[in-house]
Amino acid sequence: MKNNKLLLILFTTLIGFGSYAQQSLFGGQQIVSPEILPDNSVTFRFMTPNADTVKVTGDFLPTVKIKTERGEFDAPGSALLTKGENGVWSYKTGPLSSELYNYSFIVDGLRTIDPSNPFIIRDVASLTNLFIIGGGQADLYKVMDIPHGTVTRRWYDSPGLKMDRRLTIYTPPGYEKSTEKYPVLYLLHGAGGDEEAWIALGRTAQIMDNMIAQGKVKPMIVVMPNGNVIQDAAPGEGSEGFYKPQFMVPKTMDGTYEANFMDIIKFTEANYRVKADKANRAIAGLSMGGFHSLHISRYFPNTFDYVGLFSAAIMSRDDATGKVYSDFDGTLKKQKDNGYKLYWIGIGKTDFLYKANEEYRAKLDGMGMKYQYVESEGGHIWRNWRVYLSQFAPVLFK
Amino acid sequence: MKNNKLLLILFTTLIGFGSYAQQSLFGGQQIVSPEILPDNSVTFRFMTPNADTVKVTGDFLPTVKIKTERGEFDAPGSALLTKGENGVWSYKTGPLSSELYNYSFIVDGLRTIDPSNPFIIRDVASLTNLFIIGGGQADLYKVMDIPHGTVTRRWYDSPGLKMDRRLTIYTPPGYEKSTEKYPVLYLLHGAGGDEEAWIALGRTAQIMDNMIAQGKVKPMIVVMPNGNVIQDAAPGEGSEGFYKPQFMVPKTMDGTYEANFMDIIKFTEANYRVKADKANRAIAGLSMGGFHSLHISRYFPNTFDYVGLFSAAIMSRDDATGKVYSDFDGTLKKQKDNGYKLYWIGIGKTDFLYKANEEYRAKLDGMGMKYQYVESEGGHIWRNWRVYLSQFAPVLFK
Repeated sequence: MKNNKLLLILFTTLIGFGSYAQQSLFGGQQIVSPEILPDNSVTFRFMTPNADTVKVTGDFLPTVKIKTERGEFDAPGSALLTKGENGVWSYKTGPLSSELYNYSFIVDGLRTIDPSNPFIIRDVASLTNLFIIGGGQADLYKVMDIPHGTVTRRWYDSPGLKMDRRLTIYTPPGYEKSTEKYPVLYLLHGAGGDEEAWIALGRTAQIMDNMIAQGKVKPMIVVMPNGNVIQDAAPGEGSEGFYKPQFMVPKTMDGTYEANFMDIIKFTEANYRVKADKANRAIAGLSMGGFHSLHISRYFPNTFDYVGLFSAAIMSRDDATGKVYSDFDGTLKKQKDNGYKLYWIGIGKTDFLYKANEEYRAKLDGMGMKYQYVESEGGHIWRNWRVYLSQFAPVLFK
Repeated sequence: MKNNKLLLILFTTLIGFGSYAQQSLFGGQQIVSPEILPDNSVTFRFMTPNADTVKVTGDFLPTVKIKTERGEFDAPGSALLTKGENGVWSYKTGPLSSELYNYSFIVDGLRTIDPSNPFIIRDVASLTNLFIIGGGQADLYKVMDIPHGTVTRRWYDSPGLKMDRRLTIYTPPGYEKSTEKYPVLYLLHGAGGDEEAWIALGRTAQIMDNMIAQGKVKPMIVVMPNGNVIQDAAPGEGSEGFYKPQFMVPKTMDGTYEANFMDIIKFTEANYRVKADKANRAIAGLSMGGFHSLHISRYFPNTFDYVGLFSAAIMSRDDATGKVYSDFDGTLKKQKDNGYKLYWIGIGKTDFLYKANEEYRAKLDGMGMKYQYVESEGGHIWRNWRVYLSQFAPVLFK
């Protein structure tokens, strides 16, 4: 301990350990993938000397139609990598537009993540790698050197569901130092999602930070609860432990969640500095969360001035036992008569819920209930929901 | 929208979409892996009809020696899976002791994660799957149905480093509703880590929740900062965007972090209800974080009553330019003379830093500086650091 000899030995050992760790992580792969080039084309690389075929699949490629016994669906296409020196395969895209993309590799038919890219997103039970092409819309999804809000995972008591439950809350930059009260957006996930969905897949914190810094969005609190009433928290984060998440969780669309939503509002308003009135409450959600938003905003009269239905899974529940779904038309008319600032509907042209939304809009038209409508390209995908959030948030609380 | 026909169509479509999503996720694999059996043996399964060999590697298997040009290291062993029907390979362990384990598969030499298990941990740039065997120590790592603390990712201003930086803070159950002031543990990560390391790999929130509920640990705040002064946040969470993390980050052990640590303490004490005195401050860290804890606790006199060195990367820095490392012996003697409640050293018998810690203990013995010493099995691994936290936390602030 007296001279720098030991220091040198230890540093060498640490570096050796580091190198071993790196090598073991990548199975010896010291390659760069994905490499984003100056023209926004991207090179994917994968090292495997013995494979017959290596493909990359991801949402930067044109979709292909997949037929299942339950119908036809759009799925990401794939592209073949070319084998080069030292067993390194590669594929270079053309210039890509600004977006957050997902991808994975398929090696001799076996799907695998990119061992050179430790950044992944979980969607239901699927893990895919991600990368961002900036210079446009997806600059909103990047962490910029600007003031940042705070993201909190917190447990609240739901008396209605008789459970402690976990939610994710975004508070805007300056919240902690201010004495101001803030408006609240309740932002709901879709089937297969949970309280991690909007913050991870939706890049909510980045979108809010960036648009608040640009002066386009009013500083607000965003509450992202878990809409699966049988869960206390996201898979792996709750008392159920680790299990393979399912797309359809029981009891998510039976009215229980909607009927007990006031537990979440009461918790938020009791624990955060919020403006606790209709003019300062918004509710929005994607797919099943759009369905929830529709019913919650209708069921609790005069509670929300802003409602956002993102690719909403709209379906008539006249027959359902849940009290929430009774008197749909009557309560919707009451919502209309009570007044609101914004009823926002967004859907992609190829979404399998397009027709249901079209019919719902006809219903609203028929009763003279005003709404703002955005029709985008594409289908039932996160790309659209991030865009919808970036279109919906600027209109709120102004 | 008038009857339940549309409802049925939509549900079917949703379920079809879900099935497609599931199938695409798992490449058609609808198998259970890992399956934890009643006797705590575990079956791993992997579906691939065409592979020649499928192995599982993980820390539940005996380690093997790996030779590199820089020395010999312990690495997890591997076991061969046996091919069964329908291309499903499997391997069953014997009964495993209670632990949080990591694993991945090696298919014809290619390392891949388990497509049936969406739960992974990132360590530096490596992703591995995890599972927990309960019934012992690892029950502390599970989310139990008990009161939970809050986990917050928050940005603070570091005037010393001239940056907004991100940290992770755990506040104990009841913090928000109480008017009480709490003691603080500053918990530091190792080389290659960041502000996500202790909360993800270290299961800090679960350990604290469980041990507080058991009455074994005093409710306290745990601050987990980022020790890499060139980063504003963890890889992928900061303004550098997505890049492959390195084990050794520049400037992590040059004194800059230690010299500016007061920024973190000041932020914590200005923003949380804490008892802001020596008797209510603890600092501990693993590996490089142990090195940081050693120097921070010595450099800022009379600041911490509790110091924990977990497998600390102890090395003499008499020659280093950083002011922090000057007068090591003098400041250590001052730390001793000022008094403290606990100086805790833990290390594994096969840790490559064992000898350095032995020499450091001899130095402390020589100067009559008291410490508590725990020698565990194993090496420089997270398994030990979780155990050390569960041994160190109960002694604090009592």
